[in-house]
Amino acid sequence: MDISGYFVHHVYFWLNDPDSKKDLAALVAGLKKLAPLHLIKEYHIGLPAATDRGVIDRSYAVSWLLIFATAEDQERYQTAPEHLDFVKECSSLWSKVVVYDSVGA
Amino acid sequence: MDISGYFVHHVYFWLNDPDSKKDLAALVAGLKKLAPLHLIKEYHIGLPAATDRGVIDRSYAVSWLLIFATAEDQERYQTAPEHLDFVKECSSLWSKVVVYDSVGA
Repeated sequence: MDISGYFVHHVYFWLNDPDSKKDLAALVAGLKKLAPLHLIKEYHIGLPAATDRGVIDRSYAVSWLLIFATAEDQERYQTAPEHLDFVKECSSLWSKVVVYDSVGA
Repeated sequence: MDISGYFVHHVYFWLNDPDSKKDLAALVAGLKKLAPLHLIKEYHIGLPAATDRGVIDRSYAVSWLLIFATAEDQERYQTAPEHLDFVKECSSLWSKVVVYDSVGA
């Protein structure tokens, strides 16, 4: 599949308790529950890879990469009940979120 | 296509001259030349989207998202002649690079 024209929404989460395997598992479970949402074209729930160079940020706990067909679908996702439920259920787990949204160049 | 088990390599570039449309075009052109590399499963060359919330980082110039089938393919990519040529030709354009590598959770 060619995703080059798509809307990329990439979220990185840092946990309140970075050492809690239970909190990490709960966040991953919450994302897995959200992933089948029809608006999402492709998704990837990630953990920091073993790669380790100066330019690599490995400080986050979970990466949540979403590919949307359009910018409008990403907007719809923001207010989808399933997404709001996820935020309600899981937001106590994280201390910081950084989002990068990008459109095809 | 299900990318959930794949290796995600996401690079964000900041330009030395953030106002130079010429430098931006040169970096995008360099990435477009690199994109057909056989090791790369999927790619997305991105620019900051119009979305603008507190958690969104819109300060970068170009986003370069690569999906690899395996961690080993990403390692091979690092030393592929095409990649080294790209770095040689384009590295004078950027002032900062941040990379997030992640494996399926």
